[in-house]
Amino acid sequence: MECDPIGTVHTPFETTSDAPRQGALEDAAGVVELGPDYRAGLGGFDGDRVVVVWWADRADRSVLRLDRDTSRGVFTSRSPARPNPVCVTECAVESVDVDAGRLDVRGVDMADGSPVLDLKVPVDVQCWTDDST
Amino acid sequence: MECDPIGTVHTPFETTSDAPRQGALEDAAGVVELGPDYRAGLGGFDGDRVVVVWWADRADRSVLRLDRDTSRGVFTSRSPARPNPVCVTECAVESVDVDAGRLDVRGVDMADGSPVLDLKVPVDVQCWTDDST
Repeated sequence: MECDPIGTVHTPFETTSDAPRQGALEDAAGVVELGPDYRAGLGGFDGDRVVVVWWADRADRSVLRLDRDTSRGVFTSRSPARPNPVCVTECAVESVDVDAGRLDVRGVDMADGSPVLDLKVPVDVQCWTDDST
Repeated sequence: MECDPIGTVHTPFETTSDAPRQGALEDAAGVVELGPDYRAGLGGFDGDRVVVVWWADRADRSVLRLDRDTSRGVFTSRSPARPNPVCVTECAVESVDVDAGRLDVRGVDMADGSPVLDLKVPVDVQCWTDDST
């Protein structure tokens, strides 16, 4: 299955090793920029949090066991090093410019320049009505 | 970027339309089965919750705006229909068989047979120690 990036995230971290293990541990600012073809997907966005699904493009995909404890596998962690380095970070939204496809966020833990695969509302935010499809 | 499924999830739902909008809304049982090459990644798994990252393989990837309200884009929702149908469902773990690569879970919202891309611990579970890497 092939993913096409919808955009890029800019952060203060050169690598995922420089980044906090979870974005919420620090309050670092970042910017999500969507490509022109995907900006319509941001229409009506008015939430104060967003789930950023991103691709750790510099991760070692051959890793199955943790360096720090080889009795444990990568699926017991959130390390970016894993067979499919799809990472999930919930960020606070500071501002959004739908036309420009730009979100200013806080709580990032991505390496600068990481490809973004998707944006979602957090699971605890109800985004439908009972009669919607 | 190319993802290789690490396994498959079995659920009672033939399509994502049959499934609840969020797994937590129902308490449906499912089974995650990992392929032989990926079972080592489950070593030491002992959590009672798991984040299942899965691929909605029957989703319409051309959708950018919501059917129910075309003023809103797909990135304001969690619908599987989106450019990269990477979905994220936190499930309760009922039992795990590391050697067989099998997790019995509850709270599924995937269509039966959906490819699984990744498993992670939930973000609120600390899975490291201060001196670990």
